[in-house]
Amino acid sequence: RELRTTGRQARVGDRSRSPRQNVRTASLILCTFSYLLVGAAVFDALESETESARKRLLEQKRSEFRRKYRFSPEDYRELERLVLQAEPHRAGRQWKFAGSFYFAITVITTIGYGHAAPGTDAGKIFCMFYAILGIPLTLVTFQSLGERMNVLVRWLLQRLKRCAGLRRTQVSTENMVVVGLLSCLGTLAMGAAAFSHFEGWTFFHAYYYCFITLTTIGFGDFVALQRDEALHKRPPYVAFSFLYILLGLTVIGAFLNLVVLRFLTLNAEDERRDAEGRASLRRVRPGDPLRPSQEVARCGALPSRDPIPFSCLGARSCSRWKLIRLFTAAPSPPRLHLQILSLPHPLRRKAI
Amino acid sequence: RELRTTGRQARVGDRSRSPRQNVRTASLILCTFSYLLVGAAVFDALESETESARKRLLEQKRSEFRRKYRFSPEDYRELERLVLQAEPHRAGRQWKFAGSFYFAITVITTIGYGHAAPGTDAGKIFCMFYAILGIPLTLVTFQSLGERMNVLVRWLLQRLKRCAGLRRTQVSTENMVVVGLLSCLGTLAMGAAAFSHFEGWTFFHAYYYCFITLTTIGFGDFVALQRDEALHKRPPYVAFSFLYILLGLTVIGAFLNLVVLRFLTLNAEDERRDAEGRASLRRVRPGDPLRPSQEVARCGALPSRDPIPFSCLGARSCSRWKLIRLFTAAPSPPRLHLQILSLPHPLRRKAI
Repeated sequence: RELRTTGRQARVGDRSRSPRQNVRTASLILCTFSYLLVGAAVFDALESETESARKRLLEQKRSEFRRKYRFSPEDYRELERLVLQAEPHRAGRQWKFAGSFYFAITVITTIGYGHAAPGTDAGKIFCMFYAILGIPLTLVTFQSLGERMNVLVRWLLQRLKRCAGLRRTQVSTENMVVVGLLSCLGTLAMGAAAFSHFEGWTFFHAYYYCFITLTTIGFGDFVALQRDEALHKRPPYVAFSFLYILLGLTVIGAFLNLVVLRFLTLNAEDERRDAEGRASLRRVRPGDPLRPSQEVARCGALPSRDPIPFSCLGARSCSRWKLIRLFTAAPSPPRLHLQILSLPHPLRRKAI
Repeated sequence: RELRTTGRQARVGDRSRSPRQNVRTASLILCTFSYLLVGAAVFDALESETESARKRLLEQKRSEFRRKYRFSPEDYRELERLVLQAEPHRAGRQWKFAGSFYFAITVITTIGYGHAAPGTDAGKIFCMFYAILGIPLTLVTFQSLGERMNVLVRWLLQRLKRCAGLRRTQVSTENMVVVGLLSCLGTLAMGAAAFSHFEGWTFFHAYYYCFITLTTIGFGDFVALQRDEALHKRPPYVAFSFLYILLGLTVIGAFLNLVVLRFLTLNAEDERRDAEGRASLRRVRPGDPLRPSQEVARCGALPSRDPIPFSCLGARSCSRWKLIRLFTAAPSPPRLHLQILSLPHPLRRKAI
């Protein structure tokens, strides 16, 4: 079945041109939707009760206040509006240079706490244009910086292995992933320690704040630099917060660069490979003997570097291998083996 | 200077192994930092005045209220806390299934409005684990779906060109970028029309909301489904909101897939090319004549498909070309031209 599937991909004039990519995309959509359903159910179970209890408590307190002070309904609504609008001001001036810089960071990194949001229409318009340019710039910068960090870490690890006198000093992807994971956890813990000290939060809440910030979710339930006018009165702490966010995003970016980036291009690589296969077959005139690469393209790519045992090809019991194949890049058909040694594997993503 | 730079890259045992990548990364950091400074200055100019005026107005109103009702300071602070905590409840139950699903979407897409945030510690912990798995899953899904969308659009455009009787039916990258841009604007406008109708916002505010949502910034200053208990009383509108967010993110994802994704892998591709160059040179024994590919690797890659005019090579006036080169993939050294036609350009990113 395996051979037949990839053979179908390479047949000239085939209508369902990209079965692998479509199956992969459809599976991902299904996965994500199921993930949302499961998450919704769990959050419901965890938070609903507490929400009801808290609501009842607040309603009680509100009735007490209204009885004590005898507000008119309009006055109470006015008071509510007043308190809600005054809240951001309580944390100090949000739009002086330090505050604006903080805001600009939350825009281009897409963290978007919302502790401050443009009040004027001109501010909203500028915010949108600022984001259009700034977000791609930031994406590329953090990926670039993250890749450099990975190269540095790989080099350091190699030196470490050499110093430790290990026999094999080659740094594997597993090594890199473990180090990346530890770096992320370390960065979060370091931030948690710092912010719990400066903001007066518990360690757990500060850790949660760092996590929500560095994943760029940015709820805004916890926001640094909002206490005691820190934005204007504590410049070293302000600088630390900014640097922490930018460094932390680099570490996360490096980890994503290592682990996730290759999956973002699977469909495109398979498309290209399919297109090559079809183009290669089109150059065959009827009656011509097929060259090795075309023979392979017609019958289905032989696994040149994939670890699929040959005995598996075509057997029904190999659905597991097909599933794995769905989420890795398709193997490239071997071309003119004489050149293999001097050529890179054309489209295989390698971790750096 | 151009030849000398790339030659330096390929020299065996060269200490500064990746000048291009380091220069690129450093330039990006400098760019981003300058961008933040400029943004901060503009936001300061746009928002500071309004902030001061609004603060004075609110303080006035507060004094009026305190004089009218004669609050004790503790009572007023208590009232403030009460109003702030009661605010999320005013929009209705946030953690029933529909609300939790909405919240789960804001987590895995990293929008993170913050209109609802886990109140319990268990909710916070689950939220973090939920995000760790959900965010990469969502990234990959949207890129996959976006790539499929790009393929479909490309095919449609080709059919359109054919029907319109155009001579050249090939769909260029420029065509795709224009269509992608129009799709993004169209999606935003459509959402703005819908949300301004359902939420009672102005068209501009609804557009701003859609923009902030689909870029995943998610301030939370405008949040859909918070009026009149829409989460529980208007299921079709709820379904529309969810679908809009997911479809909109796909359209944005497709555009990013087309325009930005290739830049995320520039450093890695250059690293690989440099490594090949060095590996290729190491196989040369002293006294051996260099093969064409090695000769090229030693002297610096000749532009095989780059549009840099030959007369430019080495001239001082070509700093512009060098700048362009910094932000595109390095050209690959031509290898055994006989194979060029049947080989893909090894590492050139092509838009799909």
